[in-house]
Amino acid sequence: MDVKSGRVDLSHGAGGRASAQLIDEIFRDAFSNAWLDQGNDQAAFDVPLVPGGRMVMATDAHVITPLFFPGGDIGSLAVHGTINDVAVGGAVPLHLAVSFIVEEGFPLADLKRIADSMGRASREAGVPIVTGDTKVVERGKADGVFITTTGIGVLAPGVELSGDRARPGDVVLLSGSIGDHGVAIMASRENLGFETAIVSDSAALHRLTAAMVAAGGTGLKLMRDPTRGGLAATLNEIATQSRVGIRIAEEALPIKAQVVAACELLGLDPLNVANEGKLVAVVEAGAAEAVLAAMRADPLGREAVAIGEVIEDDRSFVQMTTSFGGGRIVDWLTGEQLPRIC
Amino acid sequence: MDVKSGRVDLSHGAGGRASAQLIDEIFRDAFSNAWLDQGNDQAAFDVPLVPGGRMVMATDAHVITPLFFPGGDIGSLAVHGTINDVAVGGAVPLHLAVSFIVEEGFPLADLKRIADSMGRASREAGVPIVTGDTKVVERGKADGVFITTTGIGVLAPGVELSGDRARPGDVVLLSGSIGDHGVAIMASRENLGFETAIVSDSAALHRLTAAMVAAGGTGLKLMRDPTRGGLAATLNEIATQSRVGIRIAEEALPIKAQVVAACELLGLDPLNVANEGKLVAVVEAGAAEAVLAAMRADPLGREAVAIGEVIEDDRSFVQMTTSFGGGRIVDWLTGEQLPRIC
Repeated sequence: MDVKSGRVDLSHGAGGRASAQLIDEIFRDAFSNAWLDQGNDQAAFDVPLVPGGRMVMATDAHVITPLFFPGGDIGSLAVHGTINDVAVGGAVPLHLAVSFIVEEGFPLADLKRIADSMGRASREAGVPIVTGDTKVVERGKADGVFITTTGIGVLAPGVELSGDRARPGDVVLLSGSIGDHGVAIMASRENLGFETAIVSDSAALHRLTAAMVAAGGTGLKLMRDPTRGGLAATLNEIATQSRVGIRIAEEALPIKAQVVAACELLGLDPLNVANEGKLVAVVEAGAAEAVLAAMRADPLGREAVAIGEVIEDDRSFVQMTTSFGGGRIVDWLTGEQLPRIC
Repeated sequence: MDVKSGRVDLSHGAGGRASAQLIDEIFRDAFSNAWLDQGNDQAAFDVPLVPGGRMVMATDAHVITPLFFPGGDIGSLAVHGTINDVAVGGAVPLHLAVSFIVEEGFPLADLKRIADSMGRASREAGVPIVTGDTKVVERGKADGVFITTTGIGVLAPGVELSGDRARPGDVVLLSGSIGDHGVAIMASRENLGFETAIVSDSAALHRLTAAMVAAGGTGLKLMRDPTRGGLAATLNEIATQSRVGIRIAEEALPIKAQVVAACELLGLDPLNVANEGKLVAVVEAGAAEAVLAAMRADPLGREAVAIGEVIEDDRSFVQMTTSFGGGRIVDWLTGEQLPRIC
C-alpha cells in the first residue's frame, strides 16, 4: 500500500484484504492500543469502578444504496448491524448511539420513515437508541443519508470469544442461507435490470447468540457475522487471526436457488456476497451438537448447519471441497464488487 | 415543521431551533425512550450485572470543512468533541469508537495525517479509540471524509448533572473566550478573504470537568459545551430544558479583539459562533466561588468567569445586559450561518 502518494479506492471500504491493509497500516498504528489490537469487530474491556464488570462497544457506518430495499432500509439495517457486532462478541447488547449525516434537500418524510424504522427495530430488539447527533451537509456533498450506529453490551463472566481462538479440529457452523442481503440490494438497483423475490436477511441476532453462548459454554470459541465481503472474507479473517486453515464443503452451504441464479447472472460468487442476518461460529467438536441444536431452536437459526472444520495450515488458507469432489481456495475478494451494500 | 412534504435544509444540522425541532418531531418520537428524553448531549444509564454502576455514552458526527485548520483538524476535533460530550455529563471518559465515511479518491496521506492526529489526541487525553469502522463511497457522494466518534464514560456515585437542573439564583460560569473555533474555521475558508491569527480552541475538557465535579459537589448542576450554535444556543437549551430565564452581562463575556473584528467583518454575532474547547456550567450560588477557583487552576479554565445568573422566567428567555446598560434578548440562531463548522 502506497501511503504516501496512493489514494483511497472503493476496495478500501469493501471489507476484504485492502480494508484489512488500510486498518493495519493507517488506523491500528495511529490509535495503537491493546483493545483495538484484539482485531475483532467489537472491543471488550473492563469497567473501572465496577470490578469484574466487562462490556462491549462496536460501531458501524452505514452508506447503503438504495436507502429502502426489499426486507429493510438503512435504518433497520443500522440497528441490526451494530446489535449483531455486539452480539457476536458474546455480549448482551444494552444501548445504541446513532449519528446521521444528511444531505441538504433530503425529504423529511424519508428521514422520518428511516427514523421510525430504526425505532421499531430497536424496540423489537429491546436495545434502545440512547443518544445521537445529526449533521447536514450541502447538496452534492453526501448521498441522501449516512448513519453510524454504536452499541455497547455486557459480557457475562467467563465469556471470552475472539477471532484468534479457532484451533484445528474445531467445527465451523453457519446459521442459515448466504447471499440474500447482497442479492436483494443488487436487484433493487434499477440499472442492473433483473428481478428476484429474494429479500434481505437483515435481522438482530442477539437472541440467537445468547442461546449459543448458553449452550456452548467454553466450547464456543468465536462468532462472526459475514457482512461485507461475505462468508469468504469472514472465514479468511478467522483463519488469519487464528493462524489456522479452514476447510468447508460446498455441498453443505445453504444457498437459495434464486441467489445462485442471480449470482450467475451478475458474475458473482455467493461466498463473496454480503449477509445481514447470519453468523458463523467456531466451536469445539464436543460442543458442536449442543450449539447446533440451540441454533435450530431459534427462528433465525432454523437452517443452521455445520459447514466445515478448522485444520492446521501455516498459510491460513480457506479451502472448499466442491460438489464435484475437487477443491479450491476460497480467497478474499479482490477489489470491490458490491459497493455500498451496507 | 412540514414533515410530510418539507425537506431537510442546513439549519436542521446547525444546532439551533430547527435542529431541536427536527430531533423533537422526528427522532425523539421514533426512538422513544427515557434515556433519549433526558435531552442531554449524552445518555447516562445503569449498568446491569454491575449493580450501582453508571456509565455515559455520547456520539458526534464530524463534517467540518476544511479538514485541516489552524489549531487542529477533523481528527483531533472528533476526539475532543466526543470526549467533551462525555465529560460535561460529569463522567470520566473511558473509550472511544470511531467510524469513517471516506470519499473515493481521498489521498491516503491525508487519511493517515487525520488518523495520526486522532491517535495523538486520544493518547494525550488518555481515552483510547477501541473499535472502528470504515466505509468508502463513490467520488462525489461525500466530501473528503466524515468521522463519527462515540464515547463512553463512568459516572462517580452521586454525580447527576442534567440540563433541567438550573434554578433561579444559580450562577452561570464560562470557562474562557468565545468564538475562537468558528472564526478560525471561517478564516481558513479561502473564499472569505480575510486573515486572522485566531486558532481553534479545540481541546479535551475532561480534566477541567473532573476538577469542577470535585470542587462543586452537589452544587454543580450542569455543564454544557457551546459548540454549534455557540453560547447563545447553549444558554437557550438550558433555559428551555430547566424552564427558567438566564441573564448574562455582555461586559463579563471574554471575547478576543480579533474575534470581535472578524465577526463584525462577517456580520456574525460572537454569541452564535462555535467553540470546541469551552464549557458553560450552572452552579448553586454557594458553590460558585469554589468551582470558579477549580476552573482557574486548570490550563483550559484559566480565564473562567461568572457571566450571569439564572432567573425566573416562564418564557425561558435568555437576556443580556449590554455594555451600554440596555438589554436585549439572546435568541437562538435562525437558519444556518456557519455550515460544517464541526
